[in-house]
Amino acid sequence: MSLIEDLNWRHAVKAFDPTKKVREEEVDKIIEAARLAPTSSGLQQFRVIAVSNQEIKEKLVKGALNPDSMKDCSHVLVFAAWDAYSAERIDEAFDYTTEVRGLPKGRFSSYTDKLKEIYLSQPAEVNFAHTSRQSYIGLGLAMAQAAELKVDTCPAEGFDNNVVDKVLELDKLGLKSVTLLYVGYANEEKDWMRPMKKVRIPREEFVIDVK
Amino acid sequence: MSLIEDLNWRHAVKAFDPTKKVREEEVDKIIEAARLAPTSSGLQQFRVIAVSNQEIKEKLVKGALNPDSMKDCSHVLVFAAWDAYSAERIDEAFDYTTEVRGLPKGRFSSYTDKLKEIYLSQPAEVNFAHTSRQSYIGLGLAMAQAAELKVDTCPAEGFDNNVVDKVLELDKLGLKSVTLLYVGYANEEKDWMRPMKKVRIPREEFVIDVK
Repeated sequence: MSLIEDLNWRHAVKAFDPTKKVREEEVDKIIEAARLAPTSSGLQQFRVIAVSNQEIKEKLVKGALNPDSMKDCSHVLVFAAWDAYSAERIDEAFDYTTEVRGLPKGRFSSYTDKLKEIYLSQPAEVNFAHTSRQSYIGLGLAMAQAAELKVDTCPAEGFDNNVVDKVLELDKLGLKSVTLLYVGYANEEKDWMRPMKKVRIPREEFVIDVK
Repeated sequence: MSLIEDLNWRHAVKAFDPTKKVREEEVDKIIEAARLAPTSSGLQQFRVIAVSNQEIKEKLVKGALNPDSMKDCSHVLVFAAWDAYSAERIDEAFDYTTEVRGLPKGRFSSYTDKLKEIYLSQPAEVNFAHTSRQSYIGLGLAMAQAAELKVDTCPAEGFDNNVVDKVLELDKLGLKSVTLLYVGYANEEKDWMRPMKKVRIPREEFVIDVK
């Protein structure tokens, strides 16, 4: 199947079957697609926390719009972004890049100096908006990968970030939760979205051609 | 090829061949992947402006970090997000949904009332951060689709948003530019990124398993 066929196949599943678990091998592929996501300056400003532990999943529920989906899905993938930029984080990312590429350490220092100049002078909320949006590239690719595997998903912003951050102790990792992705297999009877037609505005409204 | 193979194939191309244009049919598929992107509450808070007109492309260049890529690529796709939430925009999106699904108008009014309550009370910059990040789901899927077609791309945040917004008169559409995607075919000699190894932090650093 092509990507477009996969994207037409998927929908935001509204009820999961708690008896069906996604195989680890498939969860790994979904996470791999997110890991391969391109990010601004290649900094990979986000991480994924893959929660399959039922007890922990139930602790994340408080404040969630779809608590049953959280409980019944196989894995909750938490997309969490860097809570802030720092010179250390930027250097660490680029030191790893030069190491992998066999280049001298500091090879990109004029570029990293520029990044530091930009980010370290911006307000914290502007920077977190920036790290957060990178995670959405990974979110989209993870959903596409799940669709390729015919694994159901539902992205979810409707949850209490403070609860999730606290339960997973994300502050210790310098991260803050941004979005969730419920991964599993639909409860086809309860999933009210399933019979509904996919709705997207027509191409002519979505795109403006400047030829 | 699988999505993961496609993601491993792609890289951020640093120089394009100005003599090679991407066929409209392929550009359409890339845009279609972005159109199919899921978005928060299904609102599709972003649009794509597809610029292939050389004169306009050259007007977008001022302030861009890679002016040659902008000029030499085949198409510049501008991902632009809603500049603000409004009751009208939310109603319009849901009226279209009920129309397509053959449901009574206002069927989702308790949900849309809640959305209005949330968004219309939030500061403008919080809302724009939210609409902006939706566009990154589309950006990721557009890059994946291009890779499936073996079309080269480079995502670019390094440009002057004010210039792009003004040249394309995005304010008249209630949009603001968020990111660009250069689409075309690499100039293989000048593309200094091509021979370099793809760098991603290892899986064990990217993911935290809570089993």
